[in-house]
Amino acid sequence: MRALVYDGELRLERDYPKPEPAPGQAIVRVTKAGICNTDLELVKGYMGFGGVLGHEFVGVVESGGPEWEGRRVVGEINLACGECTCCRAGMPSQCPNRTTLGINRHDGAFADYLQLPTANLHALPDTVSDDQAAFVEPLAAALQISERRQIMPSERVVVIGDGKLGLLVAQVLRLTGCHLRLVGHHDSKLVLAQGWGIETARAGDLGANLADVVVDCTGQASGFAASLDIVRPRGTIVLKSTYHGLPEADLTRVVVDEVSVVGSRCGPFEPAIRLLAAGLVDVEAMIQARYSLDDGVVALERAAQRGTLKVLLEVG
Amino acid sequence: MRALVYDGELRLERDYPKPEPAPGQAIVRVTKAGICNTDLELVKGYMGFGGVLGHEFVGVVESGGPEWEGRRVVGEINLACGECTCCRAGMPSQCPNRTTLGINRHDGAFADYLQLPTANLHALPDTVSDDQAAFVEPLAAALQISERRQIMPSERVVVIGDGKLGLLVAQVLRLTGCHLRLVGHHDSKLVLAQGWGIETARAGDLGANLADVVVDCTGQASGFAASLDIVRPRGTIVLKSTYHGLPEADLTRVVVDEVSVVGSRCGPFEPAIRLLAAGLVDVEAMIQARYSLDDGVVALERAAQRGTLKVLLEVG
Repeated sequence: MRALVYDGELRLERDYPKPEPAPGQAIVRVTKAGICNTDLELVKGYMGFGGVLGHEFVGVVESGGPEWEGRRVVGEINLACGECTCCRAGMPSQCPNRTTLGINRHDGAFADYLQLPTANLHALPDTVSDDQAAFVEPLAAALQISERRQIMPSERVVVIGDGKLGLLVAQVLRLTGCHLRLVGHHDSKLVLAQGWGIETARAGDLGANLADVVVDCTGQASGFAASLDIVRPRGTIVLKSTYHGLPEADLTRVVVDEVSVVGSRCGPFEPAIRLLAAGLVDVEAMIQARYSLDDGVVALERAAQRGTLKVLLEVG
Repeated sequence: MRALVYDGELRLERDYPKPEPAPGQAIVRVTKAGICNTDLELVKGYMGFGGVLGHEFVGVVESGGPEWEGRRVVGEINLACGECTCCRAGMPSQCPNRTTLGINRHDGAFADYLQLPTANLHALPDTVSDDQAAFVEPLAAALQISERRQIMPSERVVVIGDGKLGLLVAQVLRLTGCHLRLVGHHDSKLVLAQGWGIETARAGDLGANLADVVVDCTGQASGFAASLDIVRPRGTIVLKSTYHGLPEADLTRVVVDEVSVVGSRCGPFEPAIRLLAAGLVDVEAMIQARYSLDDGVVALERAAQRGTLKVLLEVG
């Protein structure tokens, strides 16, 4: 099968071995896949990954039992052991033995086929298109903020970063009724957000009115310092960005201002599917380009260009 | 009056101006004062402080109205404006206009007299000795952990750092009934903690059993990385340490492991006084040396020696 492989260099392989059926495992024929900034970080060396990239996908189950075969699905990306303390505590996404689709020791979705446990699959209703479904994974990650920290309708919330994740996070937080502002650098993206009724600002233009909650979606080490500058005393910084490298962080200021810092990663799929089905989140407007899997290397180069929104790979 | 002054160099002045009475302000004759690691950081340049050092004290009110005069008191160290958003929200310790006794633009307690608003004072019951009272401020800071984060009796809590603050924090957390371990480097301090019934460990000896809550009392930039190494996924790191300088911090790990980081600084005085009056916290055993204020420079040198517990200044 075709597969976009990274092992120090990125290339399309045409005879990559197709995953084998196994008990409890589904083989999914990939229809579409989305390129995430994490893919771009992996190609820079994050996680020391080697294998098939890709973790945002929609596909059709080819094998995995009669309950699943032929169904259109998305899939959770963490493959948990099911037996450790984290798994038993209902936190499979934190399983220390986990592998992660296209991120850590498990081949990913930029290929004709992928393998996932059937327990990871979520069937899609007809009301969610394939284009929309390709966004379920990052939209779930945006929803994880509300799993980690209550967002009160009366709060002042600032999302820093108008990239793909920032735009999804802003759309989700807008639904809480909070006083939301999205801070970014790109006119076209801020205009997009304004079209959704989201107040936008340029970095440095927020004035003296501090935020109760700041969500760092910059994807950059500098995002933490920027968040500290605008969070109120005893406010919360939600970190969504992962990147290769360690920033300097003013932890003394965290103590003195009694700030809370909350890490947030993968989130719940069913609420994401519900919001898409209800038309409450607009993901189509975030699709900037489409490439065939055959042109996957070029697609990743395009996705890496500054300011690019979602690049989709058309696979099946 | 005598005053231990820092303005780039540390020295005892004998003719420092005594603070003047003013409406709403008390003049307190200092009896005893404690040396805190923050004092040692200030002398290294933290906060760019200049003036009289010292913020842990017990004294007797000399003037400030008939309600207060002659009373034995301790005092909260943040001088809030009373009018800003933080003050109105019941967070005077976070007032952005605040000055802080012996830390930020307000002369401190290493002197014969200090000035504080009467609103900052707490009268002491006879059941709390002067030696005990000198610990009210740092004990309140230890109690602030439970103001910032619920500590559940069923949780595994690790305190890193067996210095003055770590020992107070461990004593307070022990009262929750949680499974507590104190990690340190100094035999004498660990033995002291064991005498209070606290389980102790050497750094690196904790084994694979991760903690629900880690409290960083190391006072060092390296404490954050050490805390990340032993906190469970979705656990909480409470930061108590302030220091001069910025550490590198693995914020990506905060995101991936969905850790919460909570800053905690000054705390509530009345609960601290209650615990001391009830004999539930042993502070006398933490007094390592006593110096006259006349020997304040030597006292700070002694306090700065690695492994020294509380050094008290006998003032009045």
